Amino acid sequence: MNITLEQAEAISLAAKQKAKEIGVPMNIAIVDEGANLKAFHRMDKAWLGSLDISIKKAKTARFFDMPSGDIGTLSQPGGPLYNIEVSNGGLISFPGGIPLKDGSGEIIGAIGVSGGSVEQDHQVASAGVAALML
Amino acid sequence: MNITLEQAEAISLAAKQKAKEIGVPMNIAIVDEGANLKAFHRMDKAWLGSLDISIKKAKTARFFDMPSGDIGTLSQPGGPLYNIEVSNGGLISFPGGIPLKDGSGEIIGAIGVSGGSVEQDHQVASAGVAALML
Amino acid sequence: MNITLEQAEAISLAAKQKAKEIGVPMNIAIVDEGANLKAFHRMDKAWLGSLDISIKKAKTARFFDMPSGDIGTLSQPGGPLYNIEVSNGGLISFPGGIPLKDGSGEIIGAIGVSGGSVEQDHQVASAGVAALML
Amino acid sequence: MNITLEQAEAISLAAKQKAKEIGVPMNIAIVDEGANLKAFHRMDKAWLGSLDISIKKAKTARFFDMPSGDIGTLSQPGGPLYNIEVSNGGLISFPGGIPLKDGSGEIIGAIGVSGGSVEQDHQVASAGVAALML
Repeated sequence: MNITLEQAEAISLAAKQKAKEIGVPMNIAIVDEGANLKAFHRMDKAWLGSLDISIKKAKTARFFDMPSGDIGTLSQPGGPLYNIEVSNGGLISFPGGIPLKDGSGEIIGAIGVSGGSVEQDHQVASAGVAALML
Repeated sequence: MNITLEQAEAISLAAKQKAKEIGVPMNIAIVDEGANLKAFHRMDKAWLGSLDISIKKAKTARFFDMPSGDIGTLSQPGGPLYNIEVSNGGLISFPGGIPLKDGSGEIIGAIGVSGGSVEQDHQVASAGVAALML
Repeated sequence: MNITLEQAEAISLAAKQKAKEIGVPMNIAIVDEGANLKAFHRMDKAWLGSLDISIKKAKTARFFDMPSGDIGTLSQPGGPLYNIEVSNGGLISFPGGIPLKDGSGEIIGAIGVSGGSVEQDHQVASAGVAALML
Repeated sequence: MNITLEQAEAISLAAKQKAKEIGVPMNIAIVDEGANLKAFHRMDKAWLGSLDISIKKAKTARFFDMPSGDIGTLSQPGGPLYNIEVSNGGLISFPGGIPLKDGSGEIIGAIGVSGGSVEQDHQVASAGVAALML
């Protein structure tokens, strides 16, 4: 199964609300199971450079079906996936990208958030993921 | 002035409603005055290849402050702007991209729609533009 | 010999003055003999998409040591250089790019102008070329 | 508000004068608030490879509204933004890029300088920033 636009919008909305709650304007990207962009929102005054990063975080999370930050633990100098970031037109391997799963545990896409600290990005992305569970 | 996310969402919503009304799933992209993506929505079952086209239509409309299709009348073989499409990382010069203006006539961004015939794309983009006027 | 920044600035200034004179805000790019950007100016309210086009016109003129529009006469459907525009990261083959020569006739760079009609672009580029002759 | 060409030229000129003063030929790039190139000057004998770096520094500073070098402190191995440089078509995360603010503190663009040591690049960029304050 693939993510629907209705689901993507609910996820984006929940993420946006969390971003407002913590007072950090964010870029919020959702990709589908094919890792292609499904929905995107750039909040007013969010960093312009985070546009591309939010999309790359979502793609990274779907490319490897794990949180983007997990890749970063393996891609450090001396690590098994050193500099994997140059593949796929550019990966982002720090937190803020999370796979999205349907009720049966199947991955149907991913969310990527960028605009604050990586902890804030992950927090906002998690709020989006939680909306899918409702 | 630059387009706000609230404006972009209202424009996208109006375009989506028009797309549903005519029964053609669309990709709907909004860029800001700097031609950077502000919002994007891909409706379920919309052509995947139209994702990139909708974004390029929006950028093209903002790049030259005119409907994307106007470029296409000039870029044909023998025309004054032949093959201008190879510039700017790829332009789309057929209809579906329209500049967005605020109340004072200043361009604040652009919308790009792709997923149906070029007439349908332009119709849906126009519905988005109209929402900004409300 | 290669173009100097002093020469490039004099050429840009003359082109800018001509653009003001005809009332069309322009993007003005100068490349050196290696076809690498030497100077660039985007006038206020000039088309954003003409940024890239002005640079590509200058490069095209230096790549082939002829006005950019000359390439366009050869690149049409059925012509000997059909679709040459896809090479070199994107050529622009309509008028507005002109090689720059020193007193001995050696090519030292090129100018590319974009922002109006191709006739206006060529006119403004020619004003830049003329400044080099002084 | 967006940077004007007149402002960009004054900034470039001040940077160029500082570069001459310290005897290091520089590439000097100015982008607007949309991170699109507004003005560029490559001084004679400046490193050719610094052309692209100066533009990327300016973009990086505007993308994240902070000096480019601030990104570099976070993008090191083990750091929170490790390898962020692969995003946005290539970031430069060492010093030489600085945001440009108008009198009210709004960011209207950024300057990027490359051609010497990163300390020299930052020094020349700072001279450009100071010219905007006059």
